[in-house]
This record gives sequence, C-alpha cells and structure tokens, in this order.
Amino acid sequence: MTGYPKTITNLIECLKKLPGVGEKSAERMALSILELDDDVLKFFAENLLSVKDKIKRCSICNHLSEEDICDICADKTRDNGILCIVEEPKDVRTLEKVGIFNGKYHVLGGLISPLDGITPNDINISNLIERIKNENIKEVIIAVKPSIEGETTSLYISKILSDLNVVISKIAYGVPIGADMEYLDSLTLELAFDNRMKISE
Amino acid sequence: MTGYPKTITNLIECLKKLPGVGEKSAERMALSILELDDDVLKFFAENLLSVKDKIKRCSICNHLSEEDICDICADKTRDNGILCIVEEPKDVRTLEKVGIFNGKYHVLGGLISPLDGITPNDINISNLIERIKNENIKEVIIAVKPSIEGETTSLYISKILSDLNVVISKIAYGVPIGADMEYLDSLTLELAFDNRMKISE
Repeated sequence: MTGYPKTITNLIECLKKLPGVGEKSAERMALSILELDDDVLKFFAENLLSVKDKIKRCSICNHLSEEDICDICADKTRDNGILCIVEEPKDVRTLEKVGIFNGKYHVLGGLISPLDGITPNDINISNLIERIKNENIKEVIIAVKPSIEGETTSLYISKILSDLNVVISKIAYGVPIGADMEYLDSLTLELAFDNRMKISE
Repeated sequence: MTGYPKTITNLIECLKKLPGVGEKSAERMALSILELDDDVLKFFAENLLSVKDKIKRCSICNHLSEEDICDICADKTRDNGILCIVEEPKDVRTLEKVGIFNGKYHVLGGLISPLDGITPNDINISNLIERIKNENIKEVIIAVKPSIEGETTSLYISKILSDLNVVISKIAYGVPIGADMEYLDSLTLELAFDNRMKISE
C-alpha cells in the first residue's frame, strides 16, 4: 500500500480485521486515531492486550465473564426460578439493555444445525437439566432467533426437559412493531398468521 | 452499561470513538477481537501506542510521514516539475492508489472558508510560491473537491501564482463515469453543462 507511512498502513491492516470494516473505513479510522488523546490510545491498547486473558466463560451460564461466575449469575437479587436460554453472549446484552428480564440466562454458544454438522453435543446444552434441578428453575424461556436452527434447538430443548416439572415457552415470532407490511419477508408473515392471536370470540 | 464484563465495555467505549462506529458495531467489533490472534492484538496495540509519536508532517509537502521528508518528496524518480495541490493526506492516498500522477504533492490541510473563519493563513499555502520557485515547478494541478470552499481556494491559489511562470489547471468537474443521470445532483449537472466539451465544430 503506497501513499501512507508504515504505522498508518499497519493500523489500517489491523482495523480491517474487525467485522464490517473495509479499506475505506479502516483508512478513515486510522487517520482519526491520530486525533485521539494519548490516554485514550493507551487505554485502548491496554484493553486490546488484556481482553483475551481476562475474558472467560461463566462456569454456570456460559456468558462472557472476567470472574469464574458472571455478574448476572452472582446477582442474588435476580429471580432464580426463571431461566432464559439464548444463543450468544450478545443476546444477553440485548435483553439486559431492554431490561425486560430479571431471571438468569443460559448461553448455548450456538444452535443445533444438522446441515452444518452442529449437534447438541457441540453446544452448551448438556448441563441444562442439572441446572434446572439444582437451581430449582420453574420456568424456561427459549429466546433464540426464528430460523430452522432456532426451531430445531427449541424442539430439542423442550424434548429433553419434558420430564421435568418446568414450564417451557419461547418468545413470540411475528410482525415487529412499526414494520411496514410490504417490506416483511414471507416467512415472517406466515409465522404471524400461524401465530395469530384471538382478540374476540 | 450492563450485560458485559468490564474489559469488553472498555473496548466498546474505545471503538465508539472511531468514526462511523456506533454502539452496535462497536459491540460486534469488541466480540470479534476475542477471536483475533494474540500477535495481531499485540501488533494492533503497539501501533496504536506509537502512531502519534511516529507520524509527523512532511516538512516539504505537509503529507503524513514518519521521516522529516515523506517518501514521495524523497523519491528522486518522480517528476519534479509538476505539483498537485490537495486538501488532505487522504487525497494523496486516493491519487497514489489510482496511480495517474507521478509528480509531487502539496497538502493544504484544509480549504479557505470565510464562513467558517478559515483564511489562507490557516492552511498550508504560504510556502507555495517559494516551493514553486525552489523546485522549479512548471505546472500546478489543483485537485480539490468541487464546493464553494474548493472554488475559493482554487481562485486564491491561481491569483497568488499568477505572476509566476507556471501553468495552473484544476481537475475537471462533471458527471462521473457509470453514473445514472437521474441520480445526479443538480449542481453536478449544472457543472457538466457549463464545462461541456465540443466534440465537433
């Protein structure tokens, strides 16, 4: 790459490894880094270097954590009787940001996908029964995305939990608030029709 | 910010300082950093820490450089008689990438904008006459964006250089190749009409 000094092109190469960052954005970012305060850059670099050492998986729920047990699992004020099963750590973040759920989480770290060779053994599902027994869980909410993999995983989970005395539900799939009907995909519309809710008899 | 351990939220905050990076992209990037190789992270951090110390401005052309004189100014094989005036270092990069120009550059570091209080004294324009004399420049190409500020700057430069024995031109403004007429702004179309080129008498 010509036209820029080495340190800038090095930064551009590093930034391009981040998701959604192409040549042009990386270039703009690298130039903007020249304008950042020294202590911001120091802080940035320190966290880059330490993040992989510091971050592990919570031994209970499999969420990202700096401790052996994550903040959410360690939080005594949260409702212990209810468990929300999600695919990825970012789903925990999404739900925490909205603030609608005050129970505990269970992060699968993937969804069952026979086509991609991902079986129940490849995701964090084996200790689920034990967790439900140990933690005295009364209700399980499956909050995975509506897809073939999501449905397969939901089905599998509801099957292995069917012998336990626990209420299992999954989040509603349908038309999102504010959506324009004409821009919705046919699968969402089909789901919305299949899951139609009675408003009067 | 809840839902993520501290090191991750630190990284998210740092990434959000980059241009075009919002909450969601920063989050996606921070999680992807967990997947990067250790030596990539080390290299990234090192360059973040050193970039501001290493990068200065070329004492001749004002382009970004790690040395007192940038690679382009130091390159003896480049055509010395021709000078391209650009607004920012990234414009040098753009032209170098296309590879259409083999002369030297002059980076203004801004454009004259009376409305924003940016006068000729605020940009790197004072040593231009001296450069043209010293470096025996025969032609000056002004390659700034078509805007009020760009036009003002072009006009100012052509005025202060009018007494010198130098050919001054500016890059052509008009309809870009491949553009759909209907999506062009009216100003570009106006320019394209004003600067129309005869194809037969």
